[in-house]
Amino acid sequence: MDNKLVGYFSRIMPLSDEEKIAIAESMVVKNYKKGTVLLEEGKISTECYFVMEGCVRQYYIVDGEEVTNNFFTEEQFVVSHLSFSQKIPANHYFGCCEDCLLVIANEQKEKDLYQRFPKFETISRMVVVKEFGEQQAAMASYITDTPEQRYLKLLKTRPDLFQRIPQYQLASYIGVKPESLSRIRKRIYHKV
Amino acid sequence: MDNKLVGYFSRIMPLSDEEKIAIAESMVVKNYKKGTVLLEEGKISTECYFVMEGCVRQYYIVDGEEVTNNFFTEEQFVVSHLSFSQKIPANHYFGCCEDCLLVIANEQKEKDLYQRFPKFETISRMVVVKEFGEQQAAMASYITDTPEQRYLKLLKTRPDLFQRIPQYQLASYIGVKPESLSRIRKRIYHKV
Repeated sequence: MDNKLVGYFSRIMPLSDEEKIAIAESMVVKNYKKGTVLLEEGKISTECYFVMEGCVRQYYIVDGEEVTNNFFTEEQFVVSHLSFSQKIPANHYFGCCEDCLLVIANEQKEKDLYQRFPKFETISRMVVVKEFGEQQAAMASYITDTPEQRYLKLLKTRPDLFQRIPQYQLASYIGVKPESLSRIRKRIYHKV
Repeated sequence: MDNKLVGYFSRIMPLSDEEKIAIAESMVVKNYKKGTVLLEEGKISTECYFVMEGCVRQYYIVDGEEVTNNFFTEEQFVVSHLSFSQKIPANHYFGCCEDCLLVIANEQKEKDLYQRFPKFETISRMVVVKEFGEQQAAMASYITDTPEQRYLKLLKTRPDLFQRIPQYQLASYIGVKPESLSRIRKRIYHKV
């Protein structure tokens, strides 16, 4: 069975055929056009997503300007944890910056799966711990790295983003103005 | 039974007496002197902590200077998720900024508890989701708020820190130099 989500879970913990089929059957997969807003600031998040194809951007609107905080691409989960788990309004947006094919989950689906297969509780915990760790690392980079270091890290860890994402959004993600990103790129290419 | 960790877990999910006793019995509680370093950059984290009393600070060393990222006080978990779960070297420090009374857990203890009481798997997942959500909010604040807004938020949500933590560490946590923190404080008190 060729299914990215099943594959992702099996890499965390071996699954029986029955479990693989249960995930695949319970999955709701949907296409979203580029530009679709999946979650708005002020709304309570009721869905989680897993990216099969495409790219979802997380951003804030600060003084009328978009500030990009994250890009979620193939095999990443898109979850607004505080809003989804505690049912409080989200403070950010999720928007599709490409045409996307996403798996959609909600609280009821999650509970059903845990009840049928308690192993998913373990898998789910391990996924959240993994993602939490990555978020801690991102926060660390934001605090301790210079914009140039963040640019170089991104180039190394997620080179695909440079083909997929407009410069001004990459600049915002790195935490600089577009002009500064151009300067950083020039500086780096002169060094190489 | 008066036990902060048992109390914390029961607020997430009701526990039987047997389960409460199991947690209490499996708990290792230890005193640490102010100044103790619990985790060093470059080391692999093998322990998680729950703060019964005291305050643990998370910090990075950047160009020889400490940059504070978090303070963990009573009823908070102290975990370096990426290092602990994936066994990679930590990129930060955990240090006791007060005398601390901490519950210590490790991977084996965690596994034993899950095996005896599968319910802890659920509780553990919910704890991690809650903490992840809080971390996402902290990251959002770091990206979208001005230092003055962060100062005011901190004053509102964690007023105790202002009594417990030296000014220069608070300044670092808010993301400014100590002089700027003084200026922010003056500005705010003039407004009030």
